[in-house]
Amino acid sequence: MFRYKAIIEYEGSLFAGWQKQNSSPTIQSCLEDAIKKYCLYEVNIEGAGRTDSGVHAFGQVIHFDLKEKRDLAETQNAINFHLRPNPISVLDIIHVKQDFHARFEAIQRQYLYRIIIRSAPPALERGRVWWVSKELSLEKMQMAGNFLIGKHDFSTFRSSQCQANSPIRTIDSFEVSSNNGEINFFIKAKSFLHKQVRSMIGSVKFVGEGKWTTDQFLSAFKSCDRNQCAKLAPPDGLYLYKVVYPER
Amino acid sequence: MFRYKAIIEYEGSLFAGWQKQNSSPTIQSCLEDAIKKYCLYEVNIEGAGRTDSGVHAFGQVIHFDLKEKRDLAETQNAINFHLRPNPISVLDIIHVKQDFHARFEAIQRQYLYRIIIRSAPPALERGRVWWVSKELSLEKMQMAGNFLIGKHDFSTFRSSQCQANSPIRTIDSFEVSSNNGEINFFIKAKSFLHKQVRSMIGSVKFVGEGKWTTDQFLSAFKSCDRNQCAKLAPPDGLYLYKVVYPER
Repeated sequence: MFRYKAIIEYEGSLFAGWQKQNSSPTIQSCLEDAIKKYCLYEVNIEGAGRTDSGVHAFGQVIHFDLKEKRDLAETQNAINFHLRPNPISVLDIIHVKQDFHARFEAIQRQYLYRIIIRSAPPALERGRVWWVSKELSLEKMQMAGNFLIGKHDFSTFRSSQCQANSPIRTIDSFEVSSNNGEINFFIKAKSFLHKQVRSMIGSVKFVGEGKWTTDQFLSAFKSCDRNQCAKLAPPDGLYLYKVVYPER
Repeated sequence: MFRYKAIIEYEGSLFAGWQKQNSSPTIQSCLEDAIKKYCLYEVNIEGAGRTDSGVHAFGQVIHFDLKEKRDLAETQNAINFHLRPNPISVLDIIHVKQDFHARFEAIQRQYLYRIIIRSAPPALERGRVWWVSKELSLEKMQMAGNFLIGKHDFSTFRSSQCQANSPIRTIDSFEVSSNNGEINFFIKAKSFLHKQVRSMIGSVKFVGEGKWTTDQFLSAFKSCDRNQCAKLAPPDGLYLYKVVYPER
């Protein structure tokens, strides 16, 4: 068997998330179907991040095995051909050693969250941003975000359905910036809990609009109580931006 | 009657263009329907530019008359409410004098055309860019674009269905720039012929990929013969960016 690593872009609005399921089309099932159409046998793929329904990706990473060592450009073009008309695209594909693992070997996952601030709902960016019609304080949101950096118990910001063994995670960075009426959050960590990013952004936004002080944010965070989490940010604005692996 | 001027954003992929027609939904008909749901009588709107099927807008301008002088924020919110779930949004709305005309009074229309250059088809920007998988020379495309600036006979770059009386138009500027794997064309003129922008971009792209020399481009332009036009650029990458009016 020969192992392949690929970088995948997708628009998640129309999918029931990343993870394969019987009832609805998912990114994973569309990719597996497209690869099967090319190589003519069943292929299982593994993704670095299990994005939820409506979440997008600029740089999801997958690996899968084929029986043949195939030409890379041909493989990329063939999978993209069979992916049509789904808004999923193989951006890059390389041969990797048999022990490479897209999920377990990742040392950092980077998420981008986009908020658009304006009175009118988005038309061109519908489903791709969180539309907020009031001003948010960048400074206060960055102050709240700074509390999250480092190793902490993230029970407050973890879905009640989360299956991880531990609520402890380490946030490497949490950066807030604004550009042309849009607010961007860049959040980096080795791994995240289920719905952690949307939980954190929802609570940080409460601080940005003045619904919470930074002290109230900190106290919700420190309570390690899911019931203290603010309303979750919608999936629309969330993008799996990049997955980082150790250099070999 | 009271006249209103509004700025409209839309994602054109799912519409049969701007102009009202009996068979298919258009931007104009969706807007008229939404306004009617608000004010409860038939309203005709006039747009500054009749964009084709699949063409988008950041800043289409319209005018329409209502029997009442209504609160502007309420009017904007109500129309946006009734526009759902169509990807059309009223960005701004103001009261104007009764003699304002969105189409006839415009002194400049600005179009943006976006090309994305990469081997993989776009997923997140599908339908919103022209995907080209080979390198294009920015310098040569700007050289070709420079020939178009000024007052000329644009018969080569005019749809055979164009109903304008004259093929003479004046291009105010034609700017090519690149940013992050994307090429942007900004084109400004008082008015354009039918399919003029897509015709010009399609031919300029021939120069960019080396299919035509700039001399061949110039000779096609000067021939004033529609048959000499290159393959049209698709509507996907085209945006009505802004419409300019004289200051009152």
